[in-house]
Amino acid sequence: MKWLHSSCLSCDFCQQADEPLCPKAQLSGYTVDGTFQQYCVASAAHVARIPKEIPLDGVAPILCAGITVYKGLKESGAKPGEMVAIVGAGGGLGSLATQYAKAMGLRVIAIDAGDDKKKMCLETLGAETFIDFSTSKNVVNDVEAATPGGLGAHTVLLLAVSEKPFQQAAEYVRPRGTVVAIGLPAGAYLKAPVFETVVKMITIKGSYVGNRKDTAEAIEFYRRGVIKAPFKVAGLSELQKVFDMMSKNQIAGRYVLDTSK
Amino acid sequence: MKWLHSSCLSCDFCQQADEPLCPKAQLSGYTVDGTFQQYCVASAAHVARIPKEIPLDGVAPILCAGITVYKGLKESGAKPGEMVAIVGAGGGLGSLATQYAKAMGLRVIAIDAGDDKKKMCLETLGAETFIDFSTSKNVVNDVEAATPGGLGAHTVLLLAVSEKPFQQAAEYVRPRGTVVAIGLPAGAYLKAPVFETVVKMITIKGSYVGNRKDTAEAIEFYRRGVIKAPFKVAGLSELQKVFDMMSKNQIAGRYVLDTSK
Amino acid sequence: MKWLHSSCLSCDFCQQADEPLCPKAQLSGYTVDGTFQQYCVASAAHVARIPKEIPLDGVAPILCAGITVYKGLKESGAKPGEMVAIVGAGGGLGSLATQYAKAMGLRVIAIDAGDDKKKMCLETLGAETFIDFSTSKNVVNDVEAATPGGLGAHTVLLLAVSEKPFQQAAEYVRPRGTVVAIGLPAGAYLKAPVFETVVKMITIKGSYVGNRKDTAEAIEFYRRGVIKAPFKVAGLSELQKVFDMMSKNQIAGRYVLDTSK
Amino acid sequence: MKWLHSSCLSCDFCQQADEPLCPKAQLSGYTVDGTFQQYCVASAAHVARIPKEIPLDGVAPILCAGITVYKGLKESGAKPGEMVAIVGAGGGLGSLATQYAKAMGLRVIAIDAGDDKKKMCLETLGAETFIDFSTSKNVVNDVEAATPGGLGAHTVLLLAVSEKPFQQAAEYVRPRGTVVAIGLPAGAYLKAPVFETVVKMITIKGSYVGNRKDTAEAIEFYRRGVIKAPFKVAGLSELQKVFDMMSKNQIAGRYVLDTSK
Repeated sequence: MKWLHSSCLSCDFCQQADEPLCPKAQLSGYTVDGTFQQYCVASAAHVARIPKEIPLDGVAPILCAGITVYKGLKESGAKPGEMVAIVGAGGGLGSLATQYAKAMGLRVIAIDAGDDKKKMCLETLGAETFIDFSTSKNVVNDVEAATPGGLGAHTVLLLAVSEKPFQQAAEYVRPRGTVVAIGLPAGAYLKAPVFETVVKMITIKGSYVGNRKDTAEAIEFYRRGVIKAPFKVAGLSELQKVFDMMSKNQIAGRYVLDTSK
Repeated sequence: MKWLHSSCLSCDFCQQADEPLCPKAQLSGYTVDGTFQQYCVASAAHVARIPKEIPLDGVAPILCAGITVYKGLKESGAKPGEMVAIVGAGGGLGSLATQYAKAMGLRVIAIDAGDDKKKMCLETLGAETFIDFSTSKNVVNDVEAATPGGLGAHTVLLLAVSEKPFQQAAEYVRPRGTVVAIGLPAGAYLKAPVFETVVKMITIKGSYVGNRKDTAEAIEFYRRGVIKAPFKVAGLSELQKVFDMMSKNQIAGRYVLDTSK
Repeated sequence: MKWLHSSCLSCDFCQQADEPLCPKAQLSGYTVDGTFQQYCVASAAHVARIPKEIPLDGVAPILCAGITVYKGLKESGAKPGEMVAIVGAGGGLGSLATQYAKAMGLRVIAIDAGDDKKKMCLETLGAETFIDFSTSKNVVNDVEAATPGGLGAHTVLLLAVSEKPFQQAAEYVRPRGTVVAIGLPAGAYLKAPVFETVVKMITIKGSYVGNRKDTAEAIEFYRRGVIKAPFKVAGLSELQKVFDMMSKNQIAGRYVLDTSK
Repeated sequence: MKWLHSSCLSCDFCQQADEPLCPKAQLSGYTVDGTFQQYCVASAAHVARIPKEIPLDGVAPILCAGITVYKGLKESGAKPGEMVAIVGAGGGLGSLATQYAKAMGLRVIAIDAGDDKKKMCLETLGAETFIDFSTSKNVVNDVEAATPGGLGAHTVLLLAVSEKPFQQAAEYVRPRGTVVAIGLPAGAYLKAPVFETVVKMITIKGSYVGNRKDTAEAIEFYRRGVIKAPFKVAGLSELQKVFDMMSKNQIAGRYVLDTSK
């Protein structure tokens, strides 16, 4: 089961395989009961199909974060060999995004903060360049310097939860490039000067979660072993404890709940 | 001759037929001397080729306004049968955009003000619906009401010269729809809430002028007689008078200068 | 109800809105009982939705022939202003294809035989040029002569029921152009020389019937009044008589059965 | 310098960056003097730009074979994660195609003959599966068995120099899949049954050499070190000897001529 619990499968959007845009879409744990329980009701048409050889706990983080960033990369239209700047590359969404991007033949400029994330992005996840926004004198210049001809990134993937990068991205994306917004900072606005957007022919677009096809594809990348998603397992009975740790910012990677415990 | 006087024809952008994005592009009347003179220098590779049967004065407005709106419609990705809302449909750019849209099989929702423009948009230019923003109680509602299922317009073309429509368009574009910015209000910003942009998967993009291919295509539509561009002719010697009328907002349609007079 | 009676809605193809490619697709009157009866079973998810204001007999021909040619035009990737050669333009599929093409902003070169069809194509259906293959000295030359620069048609739509045009189309399609096969001559082969196909970068593709979205779109064109499909009505009790006329080639346009009679 | 020596840069095709389709294109060593000499004339607009850090002898095979197969993969529209069957994967074009495909995130089914080629394809070039057409009981079945759900390959790249694979590919390509013809067997024909092509909605297309942008991209993949092209160097004075070896089929990999010797 994934965030998109079900959709009508017959509206204009479902007919074009845009189930996430269905006006009657149900969302797990939001509009219908979710998965913090031993048994739950699922929609046969929408459940993800997990190949038998995949460990259920390992694939769990793919079903939300993985699908979402994979969809964002597809929506960007980025082509193999092009450069994608990932803002928040060392976080939960970002570490998956960096791996998917690499598996899709893209070259990653990882933007995040701190030496731990730098090491992880460059050595484990496969990024080509790391830019530390907390120490960089000028992020825009640094992104441009990391791209051929200094022209900027073909694609920017916005996974951050603060507003600033949403307004800065249009400055370091390449003419004809695309900025994809995925993260959802509360109350934030996309903002870009009309003049530069027009004369540089920049595209800014939002990408939500994936449809059933994107789900199958994102899982297949995982099955092939090209995506790693570090996680720890906790029992359902430990749910409150995990929430407490999350509130205190003490979680690295993902926690997966074993509902049988 | 058109706004894009020349480009290098060998940079990354020229190689992909995006000459308007060439860093070495020259602009007529801006970076090189323009056409307010009897003789001027042109770039052989970039001059528009005007078929012999076309009157030179009639095609003149196509070479800037026509190409620009035609390019914007192409960039929108709008498909025949879809609905495009044109903001400023009754103006200089808009009256051409409405005709090109219709010739491309699109259905036009014209947004502008005043009964004269309403009449022109519906009876002469081929729009399907007219929304008067000066009298409408709620432009967003009115656009939605004009679209099948009330879902909003597939495409919004922004030709206005004030900032408000640039921020309002994201509200009445359909999920998965595209807002194309073309007009250039001084100092204006595109602004859209991150949340709605993401969950509705909206695209916002800038479109600048056309390349050589767009130019040839835009002229060919004109040659076939499906585009009309009303104009008056004045002599080059009357240039100051025409500028004065423009300053006083006394010009409807376009003035074309005859440089031999 | 249409030719595609139902599909599984959950396989790889249904997930990407390619219901016609579903391995479990059911076909009306072929794998399940069809519509030559007063009552029949339909799939709720697949029935076409007919707006109330449309006459049921009038729209009937759209549900098979209309959808099929509209889909073929979409699959061709032809863009407004481009030229499409329609082989069999005066026939049942062709007369609809010519109208859809025109409504989509395409310019039609109608290829068929006889003065009646010539008149219909040019005066009623909106074709720009008519080529009579029964009297033409050289169809390839004639198609090229009808296109700008003599370069050939951007798109060729093959609706014929003989094999020859399927092998001739590659000769008069423009470099980078697309030949779309739709008609199904028994036992016929597409055939094209490797050398010319490669150096002219030609695309040859098959297009089958439309999906649910294509169906809704094809009907919407009809609802707007831009597509006419001449037909006669006969009672279900007259079915054998209609078949006899068909065998004798005595039917022009389409016969629609009124199952209440 | 590459096969495409020059083009007019102003025709309809050059304007859309399809320089290889230019009617005035000049071809090195065919319509103009080529590179079997110490000095030759080149077209400034068309020469490939080789970054300084790349060895000139190493990149030489990229400039014809590399560009051509890279272009074919781009033209196929294959998306990262999809499966591409490469016919002739172990040959001169094929060994490059397999590496480019892998670098573009595609999964390769290599089709060729012999244990040496099997080993090279699987262990050196990065193919996922090898099918030996000389020993396979049924190539169609074997390709299908290598693809998820047995549906066939999303893309087939035809690099062979015999006619049979050109007619067989349509049988093991997946519905909605694409067959790209690149190799040029003398006098060969593409041939596919109309019925299967239509109901499976298959695309067959030719791909010629790349344009200037494709050239730059293909070289950039090589510069990044993800493409290896084994070669030996011979002096220009040894040209006849190299031709003799080629006639006797005694060359594995590529010979590069050093024109200074």
